[in-house]
Amino acid sequence: MKKQRVGFQGELGAFSQEAVKQLLGDRAEVVPFTRFEEVFRALRLGKTDAAVVPIENTLAGSVHENYDHLLEFNHRIVAETSVRIVHNLIAVPGVRFKDLRRVYSHPVALSQCLRFFSENRRIEKVPFYDTAGSVKMLMENGLKDAAAIASSVAASIYGASILRRSIEDDRRNFTRFFLLNGSRRVRPAQKAANVWKTSIVFATRNVPGALFRSLSALALRDLNLTKIESRPLRGKPWEYLFYVDFIGREDEQRVQNALHHLAETADFLRVLGSYPRGD
Amino acid sequence: MKKQRVGFQGELGAFSQEAVKQLLGDRAEVVPFTRFEEVFRALRLGKTDAAVVPIENTLAGSVHENYDHLLEFNHRIVAETSVRIVHNLIAVPGVRFKDLRRVYSHPVALSQCLRFFSENRRIEKVPFYDTAGSVKMLMENGLKDAAAIASSVAASIYGASILRRSIEDDRRNFTRFFLLNGSRRVRPAQKAANVWKTSIVFATRNVPGALFRSLSALALRDLNLTKIESRPLRGKPWEYLFYVDFIGREDEQRVQNALHHLAETADFLRVLGSYPRGD
Repeated sequence: MKKQRVGFQGELGAFSQEAVKQLLGDRAEVVPFTRFEEVFRALRLGKTDAAVVPIENTLAGSVHENYDHLLEFNHRIVAETSVRIVHNLIAVPGVRFKDLRRVYSHPVALSQCLRFFSENRRIEKVPFYDTAGSVKMLMENGLKDAAAIASSVAASIYGASILRRSIEDDRRNFTRFFLLNGSRRVRPAQKAANVWKTSIVFATRNVPGALFRSLSALALRDLNLTKIESRPLRGKPWEYLFYVDFIGREDEQRVQNALHHLAETADFLRVLGSYPRGD
Repeated sequence: MKKQRVGFQGELGAFSQEAVKQLLGDRAEVVPFTRFEEVFRALRLGKTDAAVVPIENTLAGSVHENYDHLLEFNHRIVAETSVRIVHNLIAVPGVRFKDLRRVYSHPVALSQCLRFFSENRRIEKVPFYDTAGSVKMLMENGLKDAAAIASSVAASIYGASILRRSIEDDRRNFTRFFLLNGSRRVRPAQKAANVWKTSIVFATRNVPGALFRSLSALALRDLNLTKIESRPLRGKPWEYLFYVDFIGREDEQRVQNALHHLAETADFLRVLGSYPRGD
């Protein structure tokens, strides 16, 4: 069976690659890109069959940039998954914990492991571009007194050893990813789904109570929201985009009715996709 | 007049310091902290008189960590402001653009100036902890072939020169900050405010249409929302916190009525503050 080429942002071993594995198992051949826009563009140009992008993190909020790209590129969301962000201390095989003097990682990862550094004051934090990239760098240079903070996938890809698991301060650190389809349809590796979600974006007219009226389209059909977020349109005071996820499948009659009703009250409405609820 | 001690996160010259200046003019003595939690704790302990913290960015989304601290520490929001994030190329005085081989900054700032780097391929990006901190480091070491990306305030604090202004890819990059009060009341430098905003957080009961019912408390009083965002409560499926900002002042009768009504339908409700609308 031909492997599916799946684009993502980051180095091999980035958390996005864990999301690819959760979504598509071993059927995917991952294709790394430096920027999110390149991931979307490659999918449009047919250079990849699918893409996996982060959409929100429990600590850091929504990735607005990727919502923008979803609107611009118009790829369909066909699945979602959540990855727990586990930061592991990773070193060249043979290096012992007591040898460590420096730890490399992306500053966000370093800042999420401050307890570890305050308990190990002899170890210096060194900012690096990428979590997985710091493992790659350690291995290429055979560093004997340094470690990296990255995912367990990064350790296994580059053949490095995990010295300590889960050194992050807050375990409630999850990132939600979307699987996006190009023209060639990729099917996620999923069990029979009982519960579906639909993601939409809409803009309301600049009148009082506009959001309330829009939400009535969903509430009147007993459609339960699982996410709502407003985003001001810059340079257009009082105009907003709303990102809404709700439980329901696009082809259900009551969902069709709600979308029809919502289109009456909204200035703009786009269905981003309908997909089985992930974990 | 005694200066007010205002805590913020980052090095001197960070964008938060621009927010302090916009909010309090020259009356503030800024006190930098490494972590947001320390900023909130210092305010509780009376080590500072006020705090300025970022709450959302137009590209990167809401700073959930600071919403968490607002709930935990219960400081009142007394003002808001928006800072346009302008990335400048900054070097030791005398260094010329053609001398540059490396540019230091926080990886997020570097990633927001990719066009500059693609047009100047001889210049290498070097990740560093902090935007302002990279200017400080250049100056301390007198680097002749390097620059930093940071705010103009950082350039002036450390006596560095701006070689190029506004090299960021996307100018729609704004961060919204809150001014928080401790027990000693700090008054923001504000003109007579016509328009006030109120920020609330609430959780709904786990019943269909709960959010819709909650929002009716505001819609029935013609209170206009300027922000709404849901945040799932981890480990409690179907339970959410909602962050809502609306136009209105807490002591207006219709706002009091709306809050009373909302308290009926919500599991939990907290007013985070009522403050003049910023720019």
